[in-house]
Amino acid sequence: MSPLFANMPTTIFERMSARARETGAINLGQGFPDSNGPSDVVEAAAKALIERSNQYPPMAGIPELREAVADHYRRHQSLDLTPNEVIVTSGATEALAAAILSLLTPGDEVVLFQPLYDAYLPLVRLAGGVPKLVRLAPPDWRVTAEALDAAFTSRTRVAIINTPLNPSAAVMGADELALIAERVIAADAVLISDEVWEHIVFDGLKHISPMALPGMRERTVKIGSAGKIFSLTGWKVGWMCASPALTGPLSRAHQFLTFTTAPNLQAAAAYGLAKEETYFKAMRSDYARSRDRLAEGLRQGGWAVLPSQGTYFLSVDLTASGIDIDDVSFCDRLVDAFGVAAIPFSAFYAENPVTNIVRLCFAKRDETLDAAIERMARAR
Amino acid sequence: MSPLFANMPTTIFERMSARARETGAINLGQGFPDSNGPSDVVEAAAKALIERSNQYPPMAGIPELREAVADHYRRHQSLDLTPNEVIVTSGATEALAAAILSLLTPGDEVVLFQPLYDAYLPLVRLAGGVPKLVRLAPPDWRVTAEALDAAFTSRTRVAIINTPLNPSAAVMGADELALIAERVIAADAVLISDEVWEHIVFDGLKHISPMALPGMRERTVKIGSAGKIFSLTGWKVGWMCASPALTGPLSRAHQFLTFTTAPNLQAAAAYGLAKEETYFKAMRSDYARSRDRLAEGLRQGGWAVLPSQGTYFLSVDLTASGIDIDDVSFCDRLVDAFGVAAIPFSAFYAENPVTNIVRLCFAKRDETLDAAIERMARAR
Ligand SMILES: CSCCC(=O)C(=O)O
Ligand SMILES: CSCCC(=O)C(=O)O
Repeated sequence: MSPLFANMPTTIFERMSARARETGAINLGQGFPDSNGPSDVVEAAAKALIERSNQYPPMAGIPELREAVADHYRRHQSLDLTPNEVIVTSGATEALAAAILSLLTPGDEVVLFQPLYDAYLPLVRLAGGVPKLVRLAPPDWRVTAEALDAAFTSRTRVAIINTPLNPSAAVMGADELALIAERVIAADAVLISDEVWEHIVFDGLKHISPMALPGMRERTVKIGSAGKIFSLTGWKVGWMCASPALTGPLSRAHQFLTFTTAPNLQAAAAYGLAKEETYFKAMRSDYARSRDRLAEGLRQGGWAVLPSQGTYFLSVDLTASGIDIDDVSFCDRLVDAFGVAAIPFSAFYAENPVTNIVRLCFAKRDETLDAAIERMARAR
Repeated sequence: MSPLFANMPTTIFERMSARARETGAINLGQGFPDSNGPSDVVEAAAKALIERSNQYPPMAGIPELREAVADHYRRHQSLDLTPNEVIVTSGATEALAAAILSLLTPGDEVVLFQPLYDAYLPLVRLAGGVPKLVRLAPPDWRVTAEALDAAFTSRTRVAIINTPLNPSAAVMGADELALIAERVIAADAVLISDEVWEHIVFDGLKHISPMALPGMRERTVKIGSAGKIFSLTGWKVGWMCASPALTGPLSRAHQFLTFTTAPNLQAAAAYGLAKEETYFKAMRSDYARSRDRLAEGLRQGGWAVLPSQGTYFLSVDLTASGIDIDDVSFCDRLVDAFGVAAIPFSAFYAENPVTNIVRLCFAKRDETLDAAIERMARAR
């Protein structure tokens, strides 16, 4: 038995969703919308299911989707990707696994940023990597040169970032990305860039992919997710974009993790990615409106709400809201006594956790948000 | 860069399919049917796509599918599984990865049988396992006590079998499984049992799951595949069945490899698994008819055809067919000069390969088989 998997808990997202299912709580924990995604994209998937082959597609993805991803990033992020620099995966989780397992040799140092998505560290440990943690902290979660210098060494082989950052909802600026890029280049390392929230940025902010920075084109593995882009989180269609020197090892890890992904969902993702900017703009304003509705409602209930620049999430500061138990105890109480599932920030730290912040998902219908606001007001 | 993935070739199935796509060759290489699977199952998937949530389903699978898998094996294999002993994965490949990565500690010995599916060894190496290979050989690919005794030791922690066996198309008998079970139990090891071909057995033979053997219920991880059962290989819906002591680690590996699988495809798989025995019987006779058509046609063209007891595959013996080049050279010539893609047996060996046998997939329409027979007749 692998000691890594023998002693690990089930992911916090699943545990909280299971509790919400059991208790009937409003689920603002795991990040997923409670609507069903754009109906034309869903219908494209249903049509492809009936009309096209349901047999193994090419291992790296159907040509339309590889082209659509390259084209999408050309139009939206001015990246010059070719279709053969795109490898389709069964969701961004598989992309992370394939990237981490193929890019690391046991003993390699890996720079990671806390708060971190809970898959990163187990995958790094599985690959035999030596984690070097940079700790980001409230209120602004800024990446500083000092913190980076304490983590990067000449033995750094990989760094992993997530921007927009789940759960802090901070979007990395050009200055922060430049600080990271400088050190990745100096160490001759590769940057795994988890950009699943790339389209969900608010208030006129622009997502910047580190792949667009000077010197980073050849050393970035950019990870994206159709599930996140189209609010269809169960579809599990993701991708890795990387230059030809990296796609070889990446695709060979992918071929033994899942091999390939349902062709009809790939075809629908390709259809969706061709949408005009107006679609993405409307999606962003919808989510911004939901964010504002939840933030405003919580504030009226006396909650100290932290800013959210992107993702499906906003957070409340327990201390500033006059609550003096820790985030885990509070989330337990919130789901059991008040019927709202949320995620404690400490779940995103491996050491020295932030323990007074709780994450809430606002990608929900107005009724859901309003009901949660009411329950949250009673929970203070 | 992981030296494992840096130096590995792309899987033979993908390379041969890519060559078939490029050259327009008839593809009897990679194992997939050229029809589109049962239309009612495909329609169930389309319906679920429109009608049910497309957001994250539970990490271990939707309840209907976990129940349907348990119920299916109760009816067809007299196994007494409960739904919470079933974990849904993104295809059997992910199930293999999750099982191998969670059940091994670096240094553990793993018994494997050649010929072996090409994902097994890289995954065992990734987990730090020490492979111990049992070599099975033509004409009957029998598992013998001597061969097992040379591979099993007190340090054996895991053994991996595949029955029906791809590519030999041999179905393991109760006697062979008992020999394996005895040694797995003596070593206090776990058996990963890849049974993706469990429904595709011919001539009145019965597939036996090692999980049904005395002492094996608690120490078998049974892997199945909806893609293979319903001739929908691109769907990538699979599962692992195991007792509660094993499902913990298995699901924790799964959660960081893909997390979950498209809920509509899960719902359709659940629908399909409830089909009566008549459906599976008809499927088996259809495939048996295709097997016989290809075998007969090849024999008439002078080919020495080996018996096929199950799977989508039959094989030809090059030496006995009067061909004196090796399987790899022959497959190269066959695809380039005669327009038929096939798989060389040596791709399934890590050492001491069988080099005079070539695998052909008969899960194809009559026209496809007839055209291939004609081209093969010219290739002798
Ligand atoms: C794969 S479940 C987690 C989904 C998610 O991104 C989140 O809730 O943070
Ligand atoms: C995942 S591609 C291989 C499919 C298959 O089982 C085979 O062709 O042997």
